[in-house]
Amino acid sequence: MEPVDLAVTALHGSVGDPALNSMNFLNEVAQHYPEAVSLAAGRPYEEFFDSSTLATHLDRFRRHLADDLGLGPAQVDRTLLQYGRTKGIVHHLIARNLAVDERITVDPEALVVTVGCQEAMFLVLRALRADPADVLFAVAPTYVGLTGAARLVDLPVRPVAGGPDGVDLADLRAGVRRARAEGLRPRACYVMPDFANPSGVSMDTAHRRRLLDLAAEEDLLLIEDNPYGLFPADGTDRRPTLKALDTARRVVYLGSFAKTVLPGARVGYVVADQRVAGADGTVGPLADQLAKIKSMVTVNTSPISQAVIGGVLLAHDCSLVAANVRERAAYARNLAHLVDGLARRFPAGGPVRWTVPAGGFFVVVTVPFPVDDALLHRSAREYGVLWTPMAHFYDAGTPVHALRLSLSAVTPAQIDLGLDRLAALVTDTTAAVGAPA
Amino acid sequence: MEPVDLAVTALHGSVGDPALNSMNFLNEVAQHYPEAVSLAAGRPYEEFFDSSTLATHLDRFRRHLADDLGLGPAQVDRTLLQYGRTKGIVHHLIARNLAVDERITVDPEALVVTVGCQEAMFLVLRALRADPADVLFAVAPTYVGLTGAARLVDLPVRPVAGGPDGVDLADLRAGVRRARAEGLRPRACYVMPDFANPSGVSMDTAHRRRLLDLAAEEDLLLIEDNPYGLFPADGTDRRPTLKALDTARRVVYLGSFAKTVLPGARVGYVVADQRVAGADGTVGPLADQLAKIKSMVTVNTSPISQAVIGGVLLAHDCSLVAANVRERAAYARNLAHLVDGLARRFPAGGPVRWTVPAGGFFVVVTVPFPVDDALLHRSAREYGVLWTPMAHFYDAGTPVHALRLSLSAVTPAQIDLGLDRLAALVTDTTAAVGAPA
Repeated sequence: MEPVDLAVTALHGSVGDPALNSMNFLNEVAQHYPEAVSLAAGRPYEEFFDSSTLATHLDRFRRHLADDLGLGPAQVDRTLLQYGRTKGIVHHLIARNLAVDERITVDPEALVVTVGCQEAMFLVLRALRADPADVLFAVAPTYVGLTGAARLVDLPVRPVAGGPDGVDLADLRAGVRRARAEGLRPRACYVMPDFANPSGVSMDTAHRRRLLDLAAEEDLLLIEDNPYGLFPADGTDRRPTLKALDTARRVVYLGSFAKTVLPGARVGYVVADQRVAGADGTVGPLADQLAKIKSMVTVNTSPISQAVIGGVLLAHDCSLVAANVRERAAYARNLAHLVDGLARRFPAGGPVRWTVPAGGFFVVVTVPFPVDDALLHRSAREYGVLWTPMAHFYDAGTPVHALRLSLSAVTPAQIDLGLDRLAALVTDTTAAVGAPA
Repeated sequence: MEPVDLAVTALHGSVGDPALNSMNFLNEVAQHYPEAVSLAAGRPYEEFFDSSTLATHLDRFRRHLADDLGLGPAQVDRTLLQYGRTKGIVHHLIARNLAVDERITVDPEALVVTVGCQEAMFLVLRALRADPADVLFAVAPTYVGLTGAARLVDLPVRPVAGGPDGVDLADLRAGVRRARAEGLRPRACYVMPDFANPSGVSMDTAHRRRLLDLAAEEDLLLIEDNPYGLFPADGTDRRPTLKALDTARRVVYLGSFAKTVLPGARVGYVVADQRVAGADGTVGPLADQLAKIKSMVTVNTSPISQAVIGGVLLAHDCSLVAANVRERAAYARNLAHLVDGLARRFPAGGPVRWTVPAGGFFVVVTVPFPVDDALLHRSAREYGVLWTPMAHFYDAGTPVHALRLSLSAVTPAQIDLGLDRLAALVTDTTAAVGAPA
């Protein structure tokens, strides 16, 4: 009999929550079947990884501190090695990146550099969840990291229909009004307007403007998450972010360098330029309030990690579009290859359908049977291919007949192999459940 | 009239809390008076900082991955640059460090490598705060980072008298029983047994054992925070940590590399070997539950930052005692210099008294007048010396006649200058309030 010190029920409810267990489960499956082709992980492409370049990035940022900002040697060492500014030390470079790549004009003081985008999400939700009546809206299916962070601060998340436009505005408006009628306080709606995870759907520019109008009319913040916007399909133009269209500080913008530079730096950021009036009458950006929370979560983001990101930004005049020429081509190539590969393996008009996103990392495949964790286990064990059950991105627990394929961390040859295996799984499972072929 | 989008009262109460505002305030004062001698900041000594060595540390860890762990070049790159293990990649080195320096035997799987010790604190408090009836105990005066993290998860902190032994066991026992009688659930008591921040007090070994016994009798966890244990005064022996004495998994141990390697890596850890029974009957370490929470706060600790720490550990056979020969001598020298300097400036038996700690970074000076933020401002502006009002480490808001001096980030010459200025402030203020000289 194993000794037990604590029951999991004596810990915060989040640790038993599906959102927090989903990532764990998916990681465990991947670890159990290392030989399986993974069309599951939304990790960036690894072919161009080279850890021997870290020293180059660090050195470039150190020279920037000395040559551009005029710091002496002791100040350079202090900046990289000592405790530092809570809101970060590459804020000026990020502000320039947003200007160059996204035409977003932002005061660097309205930025908080965070430990990955996940911390940015957590800080925003912790700040906004002030009262048990607070509620968050999120387009469903929803990124698990958002749902999980909300659970940590006991903030309920109400789903909003996504649909072909990326967000169903009528459903959002009705949901907000219903919540208010119930005595709740809708704080914000979380959206990923570009190549969303997991749906792959993007909003067109007119719809983005309508969403901003709705946010103003219903007095709602929008939390815009944009990890994939840099990666459109071949021949597709990038669209303006909500933040670039935001003239009334309705949008809190979350940024990530995990896909555009490297995940291992764990550097992201939040643009929070909303004006907050303090108890003493002073007014400052929401970023300052987020920084106070950050000081009690991680103190500050590692300046060493920030220096790596800063060094990469400096090497490309702060343009990540320029820094990602090879990566952008690889993702566009993979997306075309994946969609073509699905069309070659599944007949048009048949029961298997799939999305054709305008960019990003993800394609959703609909199949004529429910897709659950048991099927994923069987797929890994018997067919040698990994993917993500779409049920993980819904809160309801009802069966979902769809799975998510990720194209970001594989080669075209792996896509071919993975799709062959997926096709075999789908054929066998369709036959087993007696669904129409 | 400045535009306002949000009132601070519409945000989580923590942002208005004294604990979260304390650090901000102290940083702002320091920034306003950069020429003042700072006996305020508990930062590590900077004389030995050299950011050009980062590449060496990184390389050493990369060679360790290749040569000791047998990883191929692509796996090395993936380990440093890609998303990675939630519980960290230097856990085996930390476990070895704990064995070498602290005689703590720990399964590396019971470790979570965190973004500084602050995140470790946050994860533990988030896990333990499951219900509004939960309450935490902490020895007063209390480190502000603990109080602030508790605020973020709405966990009340009840003070326990510290006294000359480091914790007043009778007061702790009475407090726990009183809380239970009120229908509350005491979850843990936070303690810093070695050279505590801010009191400087240490527990002797017999008292540590009594505390462990009390924890077992009252069914309480102990959260042991040990950032300064490596830095005893000259001629003082180090004592066993609570965790080294813990035979019943009563102690959750928090570790930091901020003082022993460098703060800029933002790497800390938690040892959480408590056995937790899941809803499905499986039993695993509390560390696994903390990792789930971490996956929704920061995903994982930057492997680049971890590699820097790992490289330093590898260079010294995982002994931080060995790695800190120069630093240990500098802190011991400064502590002796500060205590001698106080004795030279303030008469024995007079109204000004001070602690003589057995090590660590902090000396507490008691003065014959209340020490508040206004006095700190005046000290910075008119006398050119910074220190920390002890009132910041108490929750009550009642006047405290004491201030904390930090010796960690200054030279002996700066200590002399700072003490001269402090003596002038104390003399003038004593005269002004009419206290006995």
